Amino acid sequence: MNDKGVTAVLLLSCPDQKGLVASVSDFLYRNDGNIIHADQHTDAEEGIFLQRVEWELAGFRVPREEINEAFRPIAERFGMTWRLHFSDYLARIAVLVSKQAHCMYDLLARQRMGEFRAEIPLVVSNHPDLRSVAEGFGAAYHHFTITRETKAAQEQAIIETLEAQRIDVIVLARYMQILSDGFVAHYPGRIINIHHSFLPAFAGARPYHQAYERGVKVIGATAHYVTAELDQGPIIDQDVVRVSHRDSVADMVRKGRDLEKVVLARAVDLHLRNRIIVYGNRTVVFD
Amino acid sequence: MNDKGVTAVLLLSCPDQKGLVASVSDFLYRNDGNIIHADQHTDAEEGIFLQRVEWELAGFRVPREEINEAFRPIAERFGMTWRLHFSDYLARIAVLVSKQAHCMYDLLARQRMGEFRAEIPLVVSNHPDLRSVAEGFGAAYHHFTITRETKAAQEQAIIETLEAQRIDVIVLARYMQILSDGFVAHYPGRIINIHHSFLPAFAGARPYHQAYERGVKVIGATAHYVTAELDQGPIIDQDVVRVSHRDSVADMVRKGRDLEKVVLARAVDLHLRNRIIVYGNRTVVFD
Amino acid sequence: MNDKGVTAVLLLSCPDQKGLVASVSDFLYRNDGNIIHADQHTDAEEGIFLQRVEWELAGFRVPREEINEAFRPIAERFGMTWRLHFSDYLARIAVLVSKQAHCMYDLLARQRMGEFRAEIPLVVSNHPDLRSVAEGFGAAYHHFTITRETKAAQEQAIIETLEAQRIDVIVLARYMQILSDGFVAHYPGRIINIHHSFLPAFAGARPYHQAYERGVKVIGATAHYVTAELDQGPIIDQDVVRVSHRDSVADMVRKGRDLEKVVLARAVDLHLRNRIIVYGNRTVVFD
Amino acid sequence: MNDKGVTAVLLLSCPDQKGLVASVSDFLYRNDGNIIHADQHTDAEEGIFLQRVEWELAGFRVPREEINEAFRPIAERFGMTWRLHFSDYLARIAVLVSKQAHCMYDLLARQRMGEFRAEIPLVVSNHPDLRSVAEGFGAAYHHFTITRETKAAQEQAIIETLEAQRIDVIVLARYMQILSDGFVAHYPGRIINIHHSFLPAFAGARPYHQAYERGVKVIGATAHYVTAELDQGPIIDQDVVRVSHRDSVADMVRKGRDLEKVVLARAVDLHLRNRIIVYGNRTVVFD
Repeated sequence: MNDKGVTAVLLLSCPDQKGLVASVSDFLYRNDGNIIHADQHTDAEEGIFLQRVEWELAGFRVPREEINEAFRPIAERFGMTWRLHFSDYLARIAVLVSKQAHCMYDLLARQRMGEFRAEIPLVVSNHPDLRSVAEGFGAAYHHFTITRETKAAQEQAIIETLEAQRIDVIVLARYMQILSDGFVAHYPGRIINIHHSFLPAFAGARPYHQAYERGVKVIGATAHYVTAELDQGPIIDQDVVRVSHRDSVADMVRKGRDLEKVVLARAVDLHLRNRIIVYGNRTVVFD
Repeated sequence: MNDKGVTAVLLLSCPDQKGLVASVSDFLYRNDGNIIHADQHTDAEEGIFLQRVEWELAGFRVPREEINEAFRPIAERFGMTWRLHFSDYLARIAVLVSKQAHCMYDLLARQRMGEFRAEIPLVVSNHPDLRSVAEGFGAAYHHFTITRETKAAQEQAIIETLEAQRIDVIVLARYMQILSDGFVAHYPGRIINIHHSFLPAFAGARPYHQAYERGVKVIGATAHYVTAELDQGPIIDQDVVRVSHRDSVADMVRKGRDLEKVVLARAVDLHLRNRIIVYGNRTVVFD
Repeated sequence: MNDKGVTAVLLLSCPDQKGLVASVSDFLYRNDGNIIHADQHTDAEEGIFLQRVEWELAGFRVPREEINEAFRPIAERFGMTWRLHFSDYLARIAVLVSKQAHCMYDLLARQRMGEFRAEIPLVVSNHPDLRSVAEGFGAAYHHFTITRETKAAQEQAIIETLEAQRIDVIVLARYMQILSDGFVAHYPGRIINIHHSFLPAFAGARPYHQAYERGVKVIGATAHYVTAELDQGPIIDQDVVRVSHRDSVADMVRKGRDLEKVVLARAVDLHLRNRIIVYGNRTVVFD
Repeated sequence: MNDKGVTAVLLLSCPDQKGLVASVSDFLYRNDGNIIHADQHTDAEEGIFLQRVEWELAGFRVPREEINEAFRPIAERFGMTWRLHFSDYLARIAVLVSKQAHCMYDLLARQRMGEFRAEIPLVVSNHPDLRSVAEGFGAAYHHFTITRETKAAQEQAIIETLEAQRIDVIVLARYMQILSDGFVAHYPGRIINIHHSFLPAFAGARPYHQAYERGVKVIGATAHYVTAELDQGPIIDQDVVRVSHRDSVADMVRKGRDLEKVVLARAVDLHLRNRIIVYGNRTVVFD
């Protein structure tokens, strides 16, 4: 493998204690690592330290396949949880959709334009409608009809499809089926959803109708990791737009669509660039 | 009374039907009314028409004290609810506070600078702390200690104080006591509260702690009319600010304070300029 | 033509004077017009009145092809400039691009999803790169190489292509060629551009580099009608996003792309729904 | 001096090079420093490294008055520019005003409520109008009439007043006089101004009129350090608010006032909490 222009990213968290930054930076310095980004955060209430550090592989004295082992003594000394990533890894994304296409179009177009450090080899849907769109972008389209009776079996079939394609990240692009706990547990911290409201306001179904009914003056969208509890996973990003009495539900839906696709894409991009650490039910986003 | 530079404002609502705009505008035209602002809204789902129209009194052929009667036939024909206001009326505001001073400072300073078309003759509090601030701005300070036992009697005493001072509008400037239904019913559509969250998210107590706990990326503030149901009244205005993992609860409180005072002041200003119609649990804000 | 579900939109402007609203609303009322949206604006400084009114054709007593004539007496009495539109008209858009595809992808996907009341039969470019994208969406791709020497002739050829296709609206989707005055004069009020900055800040080339250099904390995008003077046409919409020292020029470009496509699409949508009146160098947007 | 609860803040910048983070963190670690906030930034284009680190004095093995000397060898080795601050230092602010009071009210109220880590012993003005406001908050009011002829002498008198009061920070709260280069040079990086537009748009006089004339859909405010070149100093913070054709110049002024006071206060707060490093004509804001 060629290391030219490639960077390594270390994402770590552990109980806060003295000497953390010194030890990590010393490890990189001793091995001639040229740091190009470093950021850390201490959650004083929880007593947790979290850090992201990115450095150039070229010139680093530890070969990439040995970095994990070389770093292990430091990690163990401080009780760190850590992950190591390399910037030349091309993640494989599966997009799950139902009938609404705006987020899917946006993700596929971004991938095609090279905005994402990823491939999107396949689209999975519980409806047949969007096949031609997916295939127009060169993604395989897998349609699984889901009923109450078939749900368990079909989810298993979806997992097998995803595994056969070595999928790293699952993006729910307005996928209107609730995933079972078992499915979610299969991809911890690797399923990203877009909720079409400013969570925790208007969790659940038909948030724009709820928002209209309540007469709010601002609506939002929330990208979050999916966990067992519906709409309760760690929030990655949110954004909002003003509305007024002039906006009907249809207008809110229209404005909301633009929020949804932009917020979802930002979350996917942050995930792919290894900018996020999840801890507890929160995220640190090193942007 | 001198009519020079004075405007009349008509706020009306009724079931939507043909001829509404024609009749109102014809009424003004026939009487030589010079319209300086007109805006209307049709809520198609509810079938309700709402309108605000503002015109110059100078040159208008109906004397101000006869306008209500002159307009009554049109109003009755269409089944309108309507209110008439004049721009030279100086509303009288009572500010209710507890211990936090930022909204109160802001309201008093705006009044002093002439930003509001209003007087603030008095401040009411359930704590003694902010007396010198209020008095420094020339407002009387009325302190009513409130316990579970004394609440009913003290609320009655507050109402008497407000009535003695002919108060039109009550502004809850981070007043941390829940008003009884009886108190609220006494001032329908005339009590404005600032809630320190983006309602309906984080209704109730300690919203910034809730927001921190949930890991949201945006926090907000909501100005609304007070109704019997806590934190459920018609929303006048909302605004938000981005937060990140870098923001502690204290940082959110700090950022939130700036939202609170600005959003509350905007709502008070809109109310004073007769820009708001409440219908159902929603507002139309003719901004 | 079937009038069911179709609306007429009247956009008008004239010197402000008494009786305007009364006359227009009376015209509609007399002819049994069911108004579904009406909004007006008076520019007090310029003494100009502008109005948008939309009503249902079904039940209206004037046939659609006679409305212009029926309204003419009112228009002439008040010296109005006016335009009449019908909601079942399908506008024909030409998208002009260079090498960057994000706005073009977004416009084509929206058209395909039915977000726009329009067709996009063709894409014009001064580069060959994006042919397959356009054709993948079923749009013809016309490539015109433009040099200083060929510019006049090529612009003439583009105009002929647009006219052959009966194009109504030209959308510059990050088209990096300056259109000649002659070209612009050919399509007054019908060319919409997206400028990748918050105009008037950073007009001209490389605005993100300028923004980075200046150290701004907010960047923006501006959709505007194209006029003879570069980047000076009437602004339709603008939006912004926060940036910080953490954002490199590349990050600003990335954040800016999302602004650009959303702001441009909003402007196109407002234009297609006949929500905009241009007067002087400003717009009134009846949103 | 008591060190309990007190923190030290080190703000440093230097050419980017390996070992920087390791050396600084090692310095703190060796001396038992408990880091409570650390953030750094590398400007890749300029090759500059900037860092802010904050740690508790209690338990730190170097007495506060010896920290500068103890750190000097590291600073010299890397060619650092650095400043050391302590959180128990109470900065002394002079507020300069003309006739508009909103920013001044806001600053004085914040100081009184304890929002700022600072005192505001005096207000300086080129007009007599706001004396009673300042004195109501317990600040001395110094009025200096300034004409073309007296400007040099009066600025000298102002400097003497500020020096007599050991002023650290000068806040221009809508002060409508241009300070001479000599005055500015006297307080490098210590004069904060609020400009009532989104710089660099509408620099100079009457920005709201310019904004109205240009028909922008968003207006802003900019807090920046004052340098010799008018409105060109390093930007600390900016914020914006949407406007529409419905907003007259007076409405923009009204909306703008709220922006101005909030953005100015944020900038002052960031400065007082030692969150800002200026380099070139830009700022890094460690928020």
